[in-house]
Amino acid sequence: MRNFKLTIEYDGTDFRGWQIQNPRHRTVQGEIERVLKKIFKRKIRMIGSGRTDSGVHALGQVAHFKVHSTMTTTQILKAMNSLLPKDIAILKVEEVSSQFHSQYSVRRKTYRYTILNRPIRSVFQKNFCLYFPYQLNLRLMRNEAKSLMGRKNFRSFMANSTSQKQSSQRKDTIRRIFKVDIKRSKNFLFVEIEGDGFLYKMVRNIVGTLLKIGTGKLPQGSIKRILKEKNRRLVGPPSPARGLCLMKTTY
Amino acid sequence: MRNFKLTIEYDGTDFRGWQIQNPRHRTVQGEIERVLKKIFKRKIRMIGSGRTDSGVHALGQVAHFKVHSTMTTTQILKAMNSLLPKDIAILKVEEVSSQFHSQYSVRRKTYRYTILNRPIRSVFQKNFCLYFPYQLNLRLMRNEAKSLMGRKNFRSFMANSTSQKQSSQRKDTIRRIFKVDIKRSKNFLFVEIEGDGFLYKMVRNIVGTLLKIGTGKLPQGSIKRILKEKNRRLVGPPSPARGLCLMKTTY
Repeated sequence: MRNFKLTIEYDGTDFRGWQIQNPRHRTVQGEIERVLKKIFKRKIRMIGSGRTDSGVHALGQVAHFKVHSTMTTTQILKAMNSLLPKDIAILKVEEVSSQFHSQYSVRRKTYRYTILNRPIRSVFQKNFCLYFPYQLNLRLMRNEAKSLMGRKNFRSFMANSTSQKQSSQRKDTIRRIFKVDIKRSKNFLFVEIEGDGFLYKMVRNIVGTLLKIGTGKLPQGSIKRILKEKNRRLVGPPSPARGLCLMKTTY
Repeated sequence: MRNFKLTIEYDGTDFRGWQIQNPRHRTVQGEIERVLKKIFKRKIRMIGSGRTDSGVHALGQVAHFKVHSTMTTTQILKAMNSLLPKDIAILKVEEVSSQFHSQYSVRRKTYRYTILNRPIRSVFQKNFCLYFPYQLNLRLMRNEAKSLMGRKNFRSFMANSTSQKQSSQRKDTIRRIFKVDIKRSKNFLFVEIEGDGFLYKMVRNIVGTLLKIGTGKLPQGSIKRILKEKNRRLVGPPSPARGLCLMKTTY
């Protein structure tokens, strides 16, 4: 069996997220596995670095699959891109050792959240950003973001959904954040977060909290308090999925 | 009657162009006039700086309309943006003199054509560029583009459609080109053209011709020959509408 690593770009707008759950729903994994079946004439299980939610995008999602085949990586790349729908593209196909596992071998992930911060909404970026026309104090936001850095228990920033609840109780919620950058480029604001892993809706909850700080709805020091007191009531609301993009998955 | 100038952004993907022709087709003009009727409680005729074709986008289209009203420009701007569909946004509303005419007063228009020049198609830019994976000689293209500069008869670069034919025969086909820039930014190529006006499909025919020069399918000096000999057979094919965007309309 050969092991192949895929680097994948997708526009999450018309997907019910990455992972196949209900076969009636369109998912990124579902579309790619359908194409792999066509190419290799057998059912192939592809494993991703992690799931992304409905509406979340990716410029650098990674997945792997194993198959008996004599095809070259270039042939697989071309075959996949010609069969995939327009909202998924395979950027790279690499042959990797049998030990490589897209989920367990991950070392870092980088997410970017895009905020349109101008009085008028955008016609071109409508599916790729949060339209936020209110004034934001970037200095406060950047200062507050520093409290996220390092190895911490991020349980308070994890979504409280019922379906996730049971598994979350058992789960380890310690994560390490390497970088939180808040950059402005013209009317856009980018929040870039790099970490060794992220909990369910963690980035969107962090961005939602940072926006409350930027508008003065939360006092300075709130993030420190949320982390320390595990005070969920100060968190969020989660910023919408469409602004979020998985930029890079590092091994 | 007060005269209002609008600066408009639209994603042309789901429109049958700017101009109302068949009432069953969705057009930018049609959508905006529908909203103006709602706001001012009467039918209002809006005139654009010029039509754009099906699928062509705009970041800086300009139009004007006259109305008796006591609303401020800010009120009109907010009312329009809240009623317009997501693929149209009004960037600016200004009150102008009664002499201002969006079509007749135009001095310059700037168009940008976007080409994705990498082996893999783009998932995010799919509606906003031509995917062109072949190698291009930019030096040749830039050199050739110089022949477009200045005041010339661009009849050979005008589309030959039957519906346009009659009017085109009568029309003045002299235009002045102020600028043709070919820029590369990572995997994207931008052809930016500024002129005092453009004929039907002229930019797309120019881009199609430049691409033939960049791949070596047309010899150097072809544009000069096309313009001089009015040799239409060397032109095109027109590059697809989705790569084209009206960037700026100057008065």
